[in-house]
Amino acid sequence: MRLVTFRADINSAARLGAILESLVVDLAKLGAVADQPIPDNMLDFIDLGPTAVASTAKLLASYEGMFPVGTASPLANVKLLAPIPRPKKNIFGIGLNYVEHVAESSMSLDTSKELPKEPVIFSKPPTTIIGPGDAVEHNAKITQQLDWEVELAVIIGTRGKAVEEKNALNYVFGYSLMIDMSARDCRRAGQWIYSKGQDTYAPFGPVIVTADEIPDPHNLDLSLKVNGVVKQSSNTRHMLFKVPKLIADISAGITLEPGDIIATGTPEGVGAGRTPQEWVWPGDVIEAEVQSIGYMRNPVVAV
Amino acid sequence: MRLVTFRADINSAARLGAILESLVVDLAKLGAVADQPIPDNMLDFIDLGPTAVASTAKLLASYEGMFPVGTASPLANVKLLAPIPRPKKNIFGIGLNYVEHVAESSMSLDTSKELPKEPVIFSKPPTTIIGPGDAVEHNAKITQQLDWEVELAVIIGTRGKAVEEKNALNYVFGYSLMIDMSARDCRRAGQWIYSKGQDTYAPFGPVIVTADEIPDPHNLDLSLKVNGVVKQSSNTRHMLFKVPKLIADISAGITLEPGDIIATGTPEGVGAGRTPQEWVWPGDVIEAEVQSIGYMRNPVVAV
Repeated sequence: MRLVTFRADINSAARLGAILESLVVDLAKLGAVADQPIPDNMLDFIDLGPTAVASTAKLLASYEGMFPVGTASPLANVKLLAPIPRPKKNIFGIGLNYVEHVAESSMSLDTSKELPKEPVIFSKPPTTIIGPGDAVEHNAKITQQLDWEVELAVIIGTRGKAVEEKNALNYVFGYSLMIDMSARDCRRAGQWIYSKGQDTYAPFGPVIVTADEIPDPHNLDLSLKVNGVVKQSSNTRHMLFKVPKLIADISAGITLEPGDIIATGTPEGVGAGRTPQEWVWPGDVIEAEVQSIGYMRNPVVAV
Repeated sequence: MRLVTFRADINSAARLGAILESLVVDLAKLGAVADQPIPDNMLDFIDLGPTAVASTAKLLASYEGMFPVGTASPLANVKLLAPIPRPKKNIFGIGLNYVEHVAESSMSLDTSKELPKEPVIFSKPPTTIIGPGDAVEHNAKITQQLDWEVELAVIIGTRGKAVEEKNALNYVFGYSLMIDMSARDCRRAGQWIYSKGQDTYAPFGPVIVTADEIPDPHNLDLSLKVNGVVKQSSNTRHMLFKVPKLIADISAGITLEPGDIIATGTPEGVGAGRTPQEWVWPGDVIEAEVQSIGYMRNPVVAV
């Protein structure tokens, strides 16, 4: 399934939906019609685990082409939000996880040119999250070096501590796209949270594709454009530490919980690595895409 | 008020309480008796803002010495939990915020000997939190360098973005004590979250003292012992960046929310800075104290 969080109109509450071609199906409403209760928000749905995914997908399929009145809307008529508008716990980021990005970072930032021997983990506050179409805020008092990083995001579905690598994909609920906005001049004593953790610095969406539909997360093209010009274009097969390793590694010390997000790192082509360096400014438009997941467009605005 | 989260017995739910001498008053139950509704948990109480603090303090005082049956228990009979057992958003930590700790860190860790020009911010996941008496987990597969850091913790009471330094203390709900446990050998490419973010790495408590009772947070003794031997002993007046500066600085980029916690950094005397270096091991006991707030004891156990 291609799951979203949406508002039917600007005054409506956020609801859990599934996209089927040009429709958004309100899953809780469809569930009510079918006498099969489904939560109205993504986090509660994730908490139900894989059985709920399978039974909901079956329900959806059984109504395809004949959704009862009030349970589906044209996608064009709704506002998509971030699939998880407000994570309950962590958004983990992974630094330096594509080989060629390690090289460009070592030349332009203060990182080592050696490949990391273990995943480089950081976090972004829940208040970084914005949805498709939402504006990334550029505060010129704070940064003159606002940069882009397109990433595959992994959504954890099952609570886990010390997860074994060979079982790790069983803990994944689904996949999405996150842009890890990074104010390069806001690193402090090397720590990245302020650089990567400011409000609006995590455009996220447009959908979460459930894990059953992405059997191999390490063969997805991902790309990013600024003002229509391609800046990043790679494939998740070039990740240094693959998703199972990331889950095993983080969960060795930190309990992963349903709804936690792991942004898996970005390939080469960030602004800091260009000659001359490039940054985004108010008026710019960032477009990002991950194969099988989708496309997201976020403007940059002054605050 | 000296606010706590407690369980009346092992099978009871966590409840919001206030300590008065040797009693814990169940604030929601007292509120019900007095027909003045009070939430049963700390986060909802913090959300109500300063007016609720004042009216609850007044209510408490009016019943002092004659609490109705069922509204108060001997402190010795309850289990204190972390005052906020599960933060909704961020636990921010501040690195290198006491002058002499900057010096010891530069000699033993990979930090600069220059004083930082801006606060060095990192974060700890909500799953780091444990309460008074709870065990810090020592996982020998992950760390051989588990270290201690006693800190004054600031609890945010009011949502704020771009807070001005001169108004910043108005955003504080209260103060507490946090031990920022740090696995020194788990820093990766300099990032601290794995080092400081593992489960049980944030002993927190025993109480939150409301801000009205701590007019000056920069004149509090703080100290830490390992196995009865004093390792850290300083005063919050030696903070490099004081609480108003920290709030103004973080909130310039990151919205602070009620219940967010800022651990304000540790003074000199950590294990990494000693000759020879010292670490904690299973069987050790850490005791920490902050003046006007209280005392907390946490054993270290093997996992």
